[in-house]
Amino acid sequence: MQTRTLDQLETPALLLEEPRMERNIARMRSQLQRLGVVFRPHVKTNKSIDVTRRLLPDGPGPITVSTLLEADYFAGHGFTDILYAVCIAPNKLAHVAALQDRGVRLTLILDNMAAVQALAAERERSGRSFDVLIEVDCDGHRSGVKPDSALLLELGRALEAAGIPVKGVLTHAGSSYDCKTVDAIREVAEQERSLTVRAAERLRAAGFACPVVSIGSTPTALFAQHLEGVTEVRAGVFVFFDLVMAGLGVCSVDDVALSVLGTVIGHRPDKGWTLIDAGWMAMSRDRGTASQAVDQGYGIVCDADGRPIDDLIVVGANQEHGIIGHRSGKVDGALQLPVGTQVRILPNHACSTAAQYPRYQVLQGGRGVAATWDRFSGW
Amino acid sequence: MQTRTLDQLETPALLLEEPRMERNIARMRSQLQRLGVVFRPHVKTNKSIDVTRRLLPDGPGPITVSTLLEADYFAGHGFTDILYAVCIAPNKLAHVAALQDRGVRLTLILDNMAAVQALAAERERSGRSFDVLIEVDCDGHRSGVKPDSALLLELGRALEAAGIPVKGVLTHAGSSYDCKTVDAIREVAEQERSLTVRAAERLRAAGFACPVVSIGSTPTALFAQHLEGVTEVRAGVFVFFDLVMAGLGVCSVDDVALSVLGTVIGHRPDKGWTLIDAGWMAMSRDRGTASQAVDQGYGIVCDADGRPIDDLIVVGANQEHGIIGHRSGKVDGALQLPVGTQVRILPNHACSTAAQYPRYQVLQGGRGVAATWDRFSGW
Repeated sequence: MQTRTLDQLETPALLLEEPRMERNIARMRSQLQRLGVVFRPHVKTNKSIDVTRRLLPDGPGPITVSTLLEADYFAGHGFTDILYAVCIAPNKLAHVAALQDRGVRLTLILDNMAAVQALAAERERSGRSFDVLIEVDCDGHRSGVKPDSALLLELGRALEAAGIPVKGVLTHAGSSYDCKTVDAIREVAEQERSLTVRAAERLRAAGFACPVVSIGSTPTALFAQHLEGVTEVRAGVFVFFDLVMAGLGVCSVDDVALSVLGTVIGHRPDKGWTLIDAGWMAMSRDRGTASQAVDQGYGIVCDADGRPIDDLIVVGANQEHGIIGHRSGKVDGALQLPVGTQVRILPNHACSTAAQYPRYQVLQGGRGVAATWDRFSGW
Repeated sequence: MQTRTLDQLETPALLLEEPRMERNIARMRSQLQRLGVVFRPHVKTNKSIDVTRRLLPDGPGPITVSTLLEADYFAGHGFTDILYAVCIAPNKLAHVAALQDRGVRLTLILDNMAAVQALAAERERSGRSFDVLIEVDCDGHRSGVKPDSALLLELGRALEAAGIPVKGVLTHAGSSYDCKTVDAIREVAEQERSLTVRAAERLRAAGFACPVVSIGSTPTALFAQHLEGVTEVRAGVFVFFDLVMAGLGVCSVDDVALSVLGTVIGHRPDKGWTLIDAGWMAMSRDRGTASQAVDQGYGIVCDADGRPIDDLIVVGANQEHGIIGHRSGKVDGALQLPVGTQVRILPNHACSTAAQYPRYQVLQGGRGVAATWDRFSGW
């Protein structure tokens, strides 16, 4: 049921092209079906029950979260199989217990002995059990233990000694975001797979069941050639895609399902600027394309139907002002947009831009707003 | 009344040191009293009635907003003299009317003939009156008309012809954020003052009353030598200050009243990294110090009492992971913080970091949380 059109929205507003999103979801689902692994979508990008229902149309399934607030929210919508993919901090165990008491099977991750000790102490105190994956570092980009390290087995032994079975291993190939070619992504994907499987095999050889091998990132998930030994894949940003992903060659600009609707509020003809009411608060401060071959500023400028206009990008931003200019820096060419014109800006990074908004305005191809979907932020 | 201590907060959390904030407010108030101008604080930084009440302890006074949602919120708390400091877009006039109908005297700004025409048409249609300032460009950084331009007078004539009096002129010396020395800030402040006063004088010479001359930015407000001809000053970020302001020499690191509380969740001894549960979602993606003499990464790392630790900064960030390392890049020295340790990160930019949170946890010097103040985001 179409209730409003774009020109009735006060700007800035966050737009979601549902047909593009459905295409992105179908692409990932088809790839993971071919690879024969369980899909555990990461909901940190969307933070919305409406989007997540489209990721898992058969009802609440396995999901990945980045905060315990996400776990709370999705638990409230009937999700019980939730993986919290940030190493557990001791001061979050009371919150974990509250989620368990609501019927959530919350899987935790860790990469250090202090976290094992905190879980062991909590198990000793309360008798609670925990589902734990050991985080493995497959590319040196962040956290995790090396797959060949002594620490991997020490953590396994310490967990089991405390009565906490080693449920499996997990990694995130964050370095895939820094690849320059699709071939490089394929290589990172195989490295992610092989090192994580190797860690699981070492734990199994030491006598631990270690049934779960969880990997994930949008680029590696889409370009993995095979996933032998992997049991599940996590990915989140693919649902919307963004300019960083397009710059990586993972998708095309036409796949980006998220955009920010802004309105032209003025011009600076001497500088070739068109000013809009969508600044960095509306786009986020994310400048992820700055380190890529093509720097998209704060985003690509499209008309209200979503078609990129000439070579216009948002060249600068203040809190509530965006400055549109020509990618080349040329001074004329940016002046064909009268005051009051609505434009749509494709974002660098879907996760950070979406986080600036309390809701999605959902489009189904035209300028009609078909639905409004709430989303949340914070912790 | 102290209800909780820091170690009872789930992290990340946004901390506000009230004594520092009060000191920052007193400094600005004293400066503007000396300069003999009205203070119209910008509430876009704080978006909180509790903070704004401390800015204006004598009751609802003049304020500046960056969004109409801010105007709505503060109108709901009894504020009636509100300046919306972004050029008005035609599609926001219905919202403006709704605010007027609630008893708000909302001052609008514009810098182009299309906006005048939209206001004139609305006045013609509804008989409404508008309070309008013409935005003046004092430094080429964003919007506004040149103080010497023909357009300035044309806008004045078109407004008055439509029955809308020219209430005044307004500028924002955004270039003050790019200064390298305090002397340079003083120069920008005098340029901001003199060019805006000149614009007002030209309008008055053309027969328009133009009673208001409104300028503002935290650096220029604090370092202006005199403000002859100016009637009011707007500033917002001074209330909290941040590392960008400290890098400018406008305040010291000890003046920064806002910090993010995070918890250590792991280590990478081979890289000299300490991982915390406060990533870019907790800090914002703002890297404002990257272009200053001292790049603070995603922020300066302090202990739970707010004292900077050695030379530790947040050298990298993922969505929910912050990576603490030594400023120098040296590998040892970051490892003295055990898992579970709480740290406080001073932010690059108070406006963008605060925007990531639904509330402030208010401290009064120690580790006790004296109060929780709500804040809002969005449009």
